Amino acid sequence: MTLNSSKKHKYSEWYNEIIQKSNIAEYSDIKGCMIIKPYGLSIWENIKKILNNILEKTGHKNCYFPLLIPKTYLKQEEEHIKGFAKECAIITHNKLINNNGNIEIDKNSKLKEELIVRPTSETIIWKTFNKWITSYRDLPLLINQWSNVIRCEMKTKLFLRTTEFLWQEGHTAHANKKEALSETKKIINIYKKFLEIFLAIPVIKGRKTEKEKFSGAEKTYCLEAIMTDGKALQIATSHFLGQKFAKAFNVKFNNQNNKLKYVWGTSWGISTRIIGALIMIHSDSKGLIMPPKIAPTQVVIIPIYKTINELNNINKYVKNITKKLKCKNIRYIYDNTIFYTPGWKFNKYELQGIPIRINIGKKEMKNNSIELIRRDKNRYIKNISLKIFIKNINDIIHDIHKNLFKKAKMNNNKFINFAENYKEFKNILKTKGGFILANWDGSIETEKKIQKETQATVRCVVNSKKKYKRKTCIFSGKISKKISFFAKSY
Amino acid sequence: MTLNSSKKHKYSEWYNEIIQKSNIAEYSDIKGCMIIKPYGLSIWENIKKILNNILEKTGHKNCYFPLLIPKTYLKQEEEHIKGFAKECAIITHNKLINNNGNIEIDKNSKLKEELIVRPTSETIIWKTFNKWITSYRDLPLLINQWSNVIRCEMKTKLFLRTTEFLWQEGHTAHANKKEALSETKKIINIYKKFLEIFLAIPVIKGRKTEKEKFSGAEKTYCLEAIMTDGKALQIATSHFLGQKFAKAFNVKFNNQNNKLKYVWGTSWGISTRIIGALIMIHSDSKGLIMPPKIAPTQVVIIPIYKTINELNNINKYVKNITKKLKCKNIRYIYDNTIFYTPGWKFNKYELQGIPIRINIGKKEMKNNSIELIRRDKNRYIKNISLKIFIKNINDIIHDIHKNLFKKAKMNNNKFINFAENYKEFKNILKTKGGFILANWDGSIETEKKIQKETQATVRCVVNSKKKYKRKTCIFSGKISKKISFFAKSY
Repeated sequence: MTLNSSKKHKYSEWYNEIIQKSNIAEYSDIKGCMIIKPYGLSIWENIKKILNNILEKTGHKNCYFPLLIPKTYLKQEEEHIKGFAKECAIITHNKLINNNGNIEIDKNSKLKEELIVRPTSETIIWKTFNKWITSYRDLPLLINQWSNVIRCEMKTKLFLRTTEFLWQEGHTAHANKKEALSETKKIINIYKKFLEIFLAIPVIKGRKTEKEKFSGAEKTYCLEAIMTDGKALQIATSHFLGQKFAKAFNVKFNNQNNKLKYVWGTSWGISTRIIGALIMIHSDSKGLIMPPKIAPTQVVIIPIYKTINELNNINKYVKNITKKLKCKNIRYIYDNTIFYTPGWKFNKYELQGIPIRINIGKKEMKNNSIELIRRDKNRYIKNISLKIFIKNINDIIHDIHKNLFKKAKMNNNKFINFAENYKEFKNILKTKGGFILANWDGSIETEKKIQKETQATVRCVVNSKKKYKRKTCIFSGKISKKISFFAKSY
Repeated sequence: MTLNSSKKHKYSEWYNEIIQKSNIAEYSDIKGCMIIKPYGLSIWENIKKILNNILEKTGHKNCYFPLLIPKTYLKQEEEHIKGFAKECAIITHNKLINNNGNIEIDKNSKLKEELIVRPTSETIIWKTFNKWITSYRDLPLLINQWSNVIRCEMKTKLFLRTTEFLWQEGHTAHANKKEALSETKKIINIYKKFLEIFLAIPVIKGRKTEKEKFSGAEKTYCLEAIMTDGKALQIATSHFLGQKFAKAFNVKFNNQNNKLKYVWGTSWGISTRIIGALIMIHSDSKGLIMPPKIAPTQVVIIPIYKTINELNNINKYVKNITKKLKCKNIRYIYDNTIFYTPGWKFNKYELQGIPIRINIGKKEMKNNSIELIRRDKNRYIKNISLKIFIKNINDIIHDIHKNLFKKAKMNNNKFINFAENYKEFKNILKTKGGFILANWDGSIETEKKIQKETQATVRCVVNSKKKYKRKTCIFSGKISKKISFFAKSY
């Protein structure tokens, strides 16, 4: 079981193959819906656990809101419905009947009002905020939800763009603009830190343009990651909603001067898409490479033996190792199944990207040592003292993380370029790809024209006054209003 | 904020009121769909954590399968579709359009095949098992999923019967009948232990009748709980599917003799319904009483003070207490908000059923003591040494659990009666309600007739050869084939 596709030559095939062969996920027959297998789901569960702890400390509380949203809710906010109208799963009936052996919709079961499977939950949550918020004492209201959402996209790709995906969606309400804006920024910084510290994914922070922002937001902050093929992936967003949803759902509060005011809102989320990002960024042509802090299994131990008697001895030796790993909260597996050869196992765990592999054979037992293989370096280190290994295990994990982060940073650097003019812009896009920093006039017209001609979109507007002077728009020649990253994206 | 309805006199109102006032959940505008609030959701999160640990040890792996199920899957198993046809949320289109200001379904977006929001996942999972299982080496396949499901029920009630609910659904495949049957029983016993040990809910174990079993199962084992109004609640089920789904989805494996055989299946689940059960069983007219092992907050500490200076001193004193509680993994909150009076707080936490309340004032600080109030006994114990309290905290928790379990057992005993004949049966049902053990002929006809006349259904068939001799059917006078519990149910 090795990969047929090469990362270098068949990027897209390589990506799909790696996900399926390493048992992360697979497509179902339902368009764009995937089956997340135990190994893939446990990555998500780890992400959830860590982010939940962070959001608990910042005072955000988990709730669960209904999956089904009445059509009238969705259309309450004008831009919101515009943004989601074309990808709604619409429920119209609630009974099936058996018509001479054919299972058909019971036409009598037509709903009075269509229900939409949530593409996101702003509408139902703001409908509820209307009930929950009356006084300044109720603010800030800081809600989070872990849920599944449905967006019927035309083009789909495992994890990166799926009809159904799992995500976390935060929704908050505040007494004033300043606080809501600060929440929006606070969250995007939390995401950035989280991605860098736990997933070893370096990101670019910026703002979306009017064209690219969330439907219903006043401002969208985003994190963009650069894949190893140079394409962009929007990996996290945090929206400042202003008073748009407050006005759409009439959410007012009595302030300290006993005056009724509309509240200010934010919403933000990350999804299973980040699993796609970590696969693209960290893996190689041999398979996955799991960032160790999020890896479902951090250490795999494999016995090398000839006889069952030898295996029994190794089992005893390993018991002592696993006891110590457990004490240090290391997530490990000991694969002593006898169905498969060590070589088959090496291959399997290499494909799954387990950060650390340990081989134990006769020699290791004799020397009280282990043989260590770091997946990120694909290098054997023989005869390490068991004692030293256990003592340093957390340092090794940290070093693997650092190494992966460094590699990913180098990839980013490779793909970030500055274009002085439109010719250079097109040339870089054609020859190197990646992210191109450029001056533009900030107008939707220019943005659309550049996209039409080059397929590159504005990934984010950045604050980079110091490094690059604003000049004129590379496309229109007008005064540059925004320095932005352009790229082709997933 | 106290309860208006009495548990004794207005049971149903009391139940709804308690859920809403204690901030567990509330209805949304969408028929039968509820909003689970932070306090309610954290009960579910605790349930999930504990059960996940148990199922990890038994080798069950978590997966995530698509929410949307094609109609053709659902109809693959004949009885299955019959059982769910009348409560399906059916998706027919995937685009909305703006027609002169009206948001309408885009008729051009009609799906080729209708999709059903999963009411349960047997069909999509068995469709996948078909791909995953080829050899005896792939068996047993032990899968679990935490998800949301939709069943469009006519009559709904918070937690007990909701259109959408959260649950855990296990799905397994085995090489032979014996193993699958043993899995079915193993799981029902795991549920029983879990309910008794963590939720203090004593249950009755038995089998469902042919009429009441899961649509698509050969046998359904169940746990029934007795609510404090004497009504029954089905609280967990475990289904032996035989080879029904294996045949419907053609799931075969090569056995050790290299012969192709159909696999054997099971499925089983518990849902947010058990939150409804714990509320009904343990609460009183003052509000909730949380079983301490599952309680989101086990201890609440409240400062009693007159001046801010006094509060500052109490803060310091409490810091020492919370440090120790943390060390012992006790889930606590210290409510020193100044907006509200101690009386208001007492009331709030009584309503929320926090198992242990601690008051700290001047006197307690002076004596190095605390004042303790156990929610299950509603009794103050003054001047307990802080040291002794910390030392015994786990014993106190265990004692509260024991007390709640004992009370619930007493409730069960009160409501379990044996009926010699149909007259007695009807009389008990009318005067006492509860569970009635009775002999019947085991026929669906009798079952239906008894239900029609009395509204009581067979909750479960039990093994009780020793205690009660089988005689004749209370209804038909024929030979008794089954001793069963009858009851009115939620």
